Amino acid sequence: MINLTLHNPTRVIFGVGVLSQLASEASKIGKHPLVMYGKSSAKTSGLSDKVKSMLSSNDLKVTEFFGVEPNPRDDTCDRAASLGRQAGCDAVIAVGGGSVMDAAKLTSASIISGKPAWDHVTRVYPVEKALPIIMVPTLAATGSDFNGGAVITNWTMKQKFGAYSPFFFPAISIIDPVLTTTCNRNVTAWGGIDIMIHVLETYLGTNDAHCPIPDYFSEGVVKTVMKYLPLALADGNDIVARTQLSWASAVALSGMPNGGRPGGFLLHWMEHVMSAHFDIPHGLGLAYLLLPALSYFRENFPERHHMFTTNLMPDPAGFLESIGCDTTLEKLDIPGSSVSTMVDDLFAQKGKGEEMPGYPGFDKKWAERIYRGKF
Amino acid sequence: MINLTLHNPTRVIFGVGVLSQLASEASKIGKHPLVMYGKSSAKTSGLSDKVKSMLSSNDLKVTEFFGVEPNPRDDTCDRAASLGRQAGCDAVIAVGGGSVMDAAKLTSASIISGKPAWDHVTRVYPVEKALPIIMVPTLAATGSDFNGGAVITNWTMKQKFGAYSPFFFPAISIIDPVLTTTCNRNVTAWGGIDIMIHVLETYLGTNDAHCPIPDYFSEGVVKTVMKYLPLALADGNDIVARTQLSWASAVALSGMPNGGRPGGFLLHWMEHVMSAHFDIPHGLGLAYLLLPALSYFRENFPERHHMFTTNLMPDPAGFLESIGCDTTLEKLDIPGSSVSTMVDDLFAQKGKGEEMPGYPGFDKKWAERIYRGKF
Repeated sequence: MINLTLHNPTRVIFGVGVLSQLASEASKIGKHPLVMYGKSSAKTSGLSDKVKSMLSSNDLKVTEFFGVEPNPRDDTCDRAASLGRQAGCDAVIAVGGGSVMDAAKLTSASIISGKPAWDHVTRVYPVEKALPIIMVPTLAATGSDFNGGAVITNWTMKQKFGAYSPFFFPAISIIDPVLTTTCNRNVTAWGGIDIMIHVLETYLGTNDAHCPIPDYFSEGVVKTVMKYLPLALADGNDIVARTQLSWASAVALSGMPNGGRPGGFLLHWMEHVMSAHFDIPHGLGLAYLLLPALSYFRENFPERHHMFTTNLMPDPAGFLESIGCDTTLEKLDIPGSSVSTMVDDLFAQKGKGEEMPGYPGFDKKWAERIYRGKF
Repeated sequence: MINLTLHNPTRVIFGVGVLSQLASEASKIGKHPLVMYGKSSAKTSGLSDKVKSMLSSNDLKVTEFFGVEPNPRDDTCDRAASLGRQAGCDAVIAVGGGSVMDAAKLTSASIISGKPAWDHVTRVYPVEKALPIIMVPTLAATGSDFNGGAVITNWTMKQKFGAYSPFFFPAISIIDPVLTTTCNRNVTAWGGIDIMIHVLETYLGTNDAHCPIPDYFSEGVVKTVMKYLPLALADGNDIVARTQLSWASAVALSGMPNGGRPGGFLLHWMEHVMSAHFDIPHGLGLAYLLLPALSYFRENFPERHHMFTTNLMPDPAGFLESIGCDTTLEKLDIPGSSVSTMVDDLFAQKGKGEEMPGYPGFDKKWAERIYRGKF
């Protein structure tokens, strides 16, 4: 265990049916929320109408923003912020998956600052304030509902960067697993991968042998996904399975499973480069990277790799296949010729010269092997 | 999983050496803290002098209160509150174990309200405000440093009751495992028992088969204590072991391991009655109750009991003996003639007629068997 500061002030309201509390909770933090949605599913399912009606009947003025894309882009946040600022919104509500929630975080900062979202991401203008945010996740995946991080893509720059701010902790998260039952198989599986990788990054890539609480908690998150994800895939309406996945998603990046265990986020760093260029689903990108990355961990963190295969996943390839997450560069529509660009971007963003801090022996050759899917 | 609200706004600063941050952190929440200590160890060890000097040299005015006893009493809180109120304190710092921290919570409320602490415990006057609190735990046990609960004893009434308030979450907790190295073997072992029982209560006594995150996290806490407590007992200066125990203590009652898993706190309820009458160490009382209580769980929660013996502790009696926590009514200096009074108090406080809500089949006969240590 290394020293840590843990401060997660989000109030989480979790469980089947808690969506009904949205309006009363929203009333506590503002009078006129900007309600943000993804591209279409909230409209199709009727969820956005329901939310609007709930909020309106509680005397809240509602301004809606539709169209946050997967791998949400900085200019989308800017458009949402512009709308929210002009409308005089005093809070932001995100109803959607990780992309909507992450976009809402930057939007909540940009509404107040008037600065472009990307300038907050790159810390040209560090976030100094943000409107209070309520999260209503509709997918178990990123855990953005219970942490202070957000990941935004600048499509012009081909950069997908994480941003962190204490102001990005939602004031309230209303996590109703019922809302995830409409997620299709693919999205559900990709979300499950994301949850697992959130705790596996430092589980696999740490040099600290004495992190029992982080290790046991991380194993708990992974085992929960391994048990309940297949059930949710078999029956999307299995609310018991959906509930466990939603809770695993929320806690994974909340600070407690990882807190105190040193290590980086190599797979996420690598996937962000892939998505920045090819706009692939984040969870599927992580699934693609997992097997070749395990070769790296087997060689360079052998004890941790052994823990992983012994305590968690003796057959990672088989597991990925069983949930439909086995994939290839070709299936991802990523040309092999782009690998060198991705390797260069990875090292430009996270490397220190030819080295990757925190990852002994990880050089450009390793990065290339992993991007090429060799294991 | 049942629905839950999780909101733990405490900022935790954890790790070896973080005590050095006390003064700068304290400056953020006030100018004149009331600093509370236990009976003697902080003085003997020089810790209180060190703390005073740190705070004073940061231009903080310091008022000290010494003498919080184990099983802290309401009138002790009243005396501390009176001192703090008269001195014009604007914050409370607790430097000590669970008793000092719990007393500090009630004191922080009573300083503002001017009401007796016991009236806050019994909710004659619910806590409506409290001075900001900083915790500096010197023992891994109660986890009062990372939750909103406190347990106070009214010695006249022979009642030891828990109190909960959102205002009892510390503003800041500075958890430095180094401070626990001065704890003797007994206190260390009793603290370890307390940590384990905090997660075992609802682990053993739940009827919900689908709580994977709470179950895995709870098992992680128990396994951590089972591994590192013996090391800390063998060498009190084993800072690696002390670190894991301090972190296990903090997280155990933080809301995450137990959150969403239905169940009560039977062993704590029973122990509080024992302590209220006989002022025994809380952790030792829990250790005494564990074995006979397991008989109850074996009969009435057989699946959970099986999980416990299979995944965690095949030989609870052997484990307790190995850490010097095997005990008897006689050793605890509790006359057998008092059992019926304790049974009556337990049911008066927590029962509903002849039943114990949440504990099927638990009647006065079971309570008597357990208090008598029969298993």
